[in-house]
Amino acid sequence: MCQECGCGDPEIVPVEVHERLLSANDRVARHNRAHFVEHDVLALNLMGSPGSGKTAILEAIAHARGANRKLAAVSGDLATDRDAQRLRAAGIPAATITTGSACHLDAEMVHKALHDFALDDLDFFVIENVGNLVCPAIYDLGQALNVVALSVTEGEDKPLKYPVMFRNADAVLLTKIDLLPHLGGVCIRNFDDALARVMPQPRVFPVSARTGEGLDRWLQWLDEKRIRA
Amino acid sequence: MCQECGCGDPEIVPVEVHERLLSANDRVARHNRAHFVEHDVLALNLMGSPGSGKTAILEAIAHARGANRKLAAVSGDLATDRDAQRLRAAGIPAATITTGSACHLDAEMVHKALHDFALDDLDFFVIENVGNLVCPAIYDLGQALNVVALSVTEGEDKPLKYPVMFRNADAVLLTKIDLLPHLGGVCIRNFDDALARVMPQPRVFPVSARTGEGLDRWLQWLDEKRIRA
Repeated sequence: MCQECGCGDPEIVPVEVHERLLSANDRVARHNRAHFVEHDVLALNLMGSPGSGKTAILEAIAHARGANRKLAAVSGDLATDRDAQRLRAAGIPAATITTGSACHLDAEMVHKALHDFALDDLDFFVIENVGNLVCPAIYDLGQALNVVALSVTEGEDKPLKYPVMFRNADAVLLTKIDLLPHLGGVCIRNFDDALARVMPQPRVFPVSARTGEGLDRWLQWLDEKRIRA
Repeated sequence: MCQECGCGDPEIVPVEVHERLLSANDRVARHNRAHFVEHDVLALNLMGSPGSGKTAILEAIAHARGANRKLAAVSGDLATDRDAQRLRAAGIPAATITTGSACHLDAEMVHKALHDFALDDLDFFVIENVGNLVCPAIYDLGQALNVVALSVTEGEDKPLKYPVMFRNADAVLLTKIDLLPHLGGVCIRNFDDALARVMPQPRVFPVSARTGEGLDRWLQWLDEKRIRA
């Protein structure tokens, strides 16, 4: 929630308060990152609009993964435990971070949640952020990779309209591609073009959690990233 | 952007700073509201996730409205002038509020934008907020009504997961209902049930900007609200 937020009004929230906020967060994020590296766990910050399919993609990974991928997750939500419930039902150890009214996760919330997981047993740790295409992009959580889920139903112009989120993304999952035939001319090439204008190194994976299309390429990329990390 | 935001960390952003922020915003919101009332204009704060169909619904209204409805709009966006361009192309006088990195509109941004409009010539003024299902719910802009666009592709659980937004809504536009046959069992009744659990007085309009379905009821409700205002 931005009830306490000084967005665009530096006269009201002093500069030193802004700096203190980010520096406190970055200190904890560094601590989280050290944890992940120490335990050889590749951590992802999975972001995207509400309903962009973040949880569905993780469920699909759970169903697709072989015994050689060990994955856990925390799901940030204003209210309800639904996402973590869905992930646990799919066989992914998962906990909820209930943010109440906060519009994003911060490093301290993730740090507290990490105590519930045995990182030594994991290959990947997914931090499923609050559904929001703006605020989560700003906060370092200690992740190795930023991944943004963008559903084809949201429209081809979203990368241009929310550039901060996509500029900082290591990869974009273009989700719900099974719906493309019903969207009246919306096409993957237009998403690619828009993403190429904002991402320094465009990396786009068109996927469908429903049909499984595209998941292999995405999982292969994840595996490669972990080997290189 | 919540770079300057004290979300969930009252130890870092002092309480008096939070209060100063909201009180400064509310003062300008009262001023905006007085403007709207004085000119007999019904002002809507139209909110919703990125890609929930806010602009498309306004375009559809433009095509559906008779000569007896005079409408103008401002569109809040981090970047680009695309939404206002689309609205102007549909015949709606419209301006853009570019927020840069801010995750919501505030009353001062709207106040500045109002100077570009001749309110005397209008019946309705739509403030199309930044695509975000969290932060915009908190800031009073001087509107008479809060309207939330929720697309059926976002999932039936969104009202429960983002309760602050829906609790404060006077009406919900359930958009993109033409896609329901392709969503594998997603149905309007489940949205109704979820909304009834969070909205004090549920008022839901299932609509499709593409087919025009449901727009009549929504426009009739708007007309009635204006007469009563």
